Amino acid sequence: MLQTITSYLDWFGVCVFAVTGALVASRKQMDIVGFALMGSVTGIGGGTIRDVLLGLTPVFWVQKPSYLITCISVSVATFLVAGFMQSRYRYLLWFDAVGLALFAVTGASTALQHGAGATIAIAMGVATATFGGIIRDIMGGESPVILSREIYITAALLGAGVYVSLVVIGTSQDAAIVAGFICGFGLRSAALMWQLSLPRYRPATDRNPE
Amino acid sequence: MLQTITSYLDWFGVCVFAVTGALVASRKQMDIVGFALMGSVTGIGGGTIRDVLLGLTPVFWVQKPSYLITCISVSVATFLVAGFMQSRYRYLLWFDAVGLALFAVTGASTALQHGAGATIAIAMGVATATFGGIIRDIMGGESPVILSREIYITAALLGAGVYVSLVVIGTSQDAAIVAGFICGFGLRSAALMWQLSLPRYRPATDRNPE
Amino acid sequence: MLQTITSYLDWFGVCVFAVTGALVASRKQMDIVGFALMGSVTGIGGGTIRDVLLGLTPVFWVQKPSYLITCISVSVATFLVAGFMQSRYRYLLWFDAVGLALFAVTGASTALQHGAGATIAIAMGVATATFGGIIRDIMGGESPVILSREIYITAALLGAGVYVSLVVIGTSQDAAIVAGFICGFGLRSAALMWQLSLPRYRPATDRNPE
Repeated sequence: MLQTITSYLDWFGVCVFAVTGALVASRKQMDIVGFALMGSVTGIGGGTIRDVLLGLTPVFWVQKPSYLITCISVSVATFLVAGFMQSRYRYLLWFDAVGLALFAVTGASTALQHGAGATIAIAMGVATATFGGIIRDIMGGESPVILSREIYITAALLGAGVYVSLVVIGTSQDAAIVAGFICGFGLRSAALMWQLSLPRYRPATDRNPE
Repeated sequence: MLQTITSYLDWFGVCVFAVTGALVASRKQMDIVGFALMGSVTGIGGGTIRDVLLGLTPVFWVQKPSYLITCISVSVATFLVAGFMQSRYRYLLWFDAVGLALFAVTGASTALQHGAGATIAIAMGVATATFGGIIRDIMGGESPVILSREIYITAALLGAGVYVSLVVIGTSQDAAIVAGFICGFGLRSAALMWQLSLPRYRPATDRNPE
Repeated sequence: MLQTITSYLDWFGVCVFAVTGALVASRKQMDIVGFALMGSVTGIGGGTIRDVLLGLTPVFWVQKPSYLITCISVSVATFLVAGFMQSRYRYLLWFDAVGLALFAVTGASTALQHGAGATIAIAMGVATATFGGIIRDIMGGESPVILSREIYITAALLGAGVYVSLVVIGTSQDAAIVAGFICGFGLRSAALMWQLSLPRYRPATDRNPE
């Protein structure tokens, strides 16, 4: 049951991240095969790194090629549909937020299922959630989203942290998944809407101007 | 027999990609050790990612250090010889095209030998062919070749697709390898010579200027 | 005994590299969670790549989460303390030099312990020493340190080479570790202090100006 839910959400996370990869490809005016590569790398990149770190190889999409086929289909659909959206690139950050929150929870869940402790499970949630986007930005020649001013990694950390904490104290999986997703997505959404950010490091000279 | 042929071609692909890595190092005016690092990462990077994704670890060059030694030797030779070429950087894209077509076929072949289905085999061909160059460009601070205007990933896809399709329908390995290589290299060469490109995504405003 | 010493030094290398990752985060004015991500990726990135290449998965820090916790703690401490340093970024290259020399030796040592030959052990020393910093620079949007003018990769190569050579000819582990570290750190320090560099590749036109 848990595996079924996690698997569905993981699938949805793959789709929305694939869309963000395809949107970067559209911004760079790549061709349809470029869309497919960028969409695939973004959609399955984070989970791939999680699997490699945990030693779960062949990685999940080699075992279930339908993940890869889904990424390619979503990317091709984005290529065809993107023309109808006027400011399609604006949606990137919102799709990215959904994928971020989903992968934070499902990445942590996968790690727990394979025997990882709480610390590693949270780290795997953060890694699964952030590395797809990091690889997307680096391959697409964009400034990495982790350098953006608004709260980003922290939202993944919150989502994974809430999920793992609730599981550890014995909450039902369903409740933990929902709570983790809502916290992660809520924080990232709030950050996007109101430009929320944590205090940033500023040089000492800025603090004491006199 | 197949393994022998694949192995020879793989070897040749490693060499030509190592040359392209060394040429980026020369463009960046790196020293001889930098040449060796860039040549090695480019020559064995794509195959390393393929092996890690498929769970074939230790990766191939850890099992056969002669691959690494070959990369280093080729890079050092390029360092010494590069001075005699006036416009050496111009050759980069042609060496890259040979490596691209070779790795598309041998990467797919390796995946098939380890039990992968057609989809994953084609994906591994594309990954083996493209990621060495992607890592080279990112580490060398260059604009990733996948962002270039001319057909690139599509050539790898065609080469791997033709090879896998022919194997699936029962053609002899030799014929499939030759056909896959010719298609991949031919398409990339044509793209380089005549600036061929697939239709690119363009914003809707460009299409409806009025 | 060897494993104990190697482990302690590896630990120290993780700490100093985590500091360099946190210093890049400070330069990019990231928040505290960004510090933790950058510090962790830099501190354990090189060893992670070594483990993945050698097939030692789950990677070391998944097996011993205290490595990860240490990285996070060091990064948070750097976040809090960085304000007291006026020109904190200047220290980055020196911490990096210590980590470079330590990881060159411990990376090679880990490979030897798992049955690798001399060539692969030296390559693993270089990979462990350099890839943490390479990932740090790429993720942080900085120009990769391997492109810097001063000797860098060569110092890792020297450290790993001296260590492995001494082990191969039968020197005690302690002596080999110390000698390897001193050579690697000494060369990198000298390069930093006196802007030492190996001869670089220069275009033929520069050589024959007339």
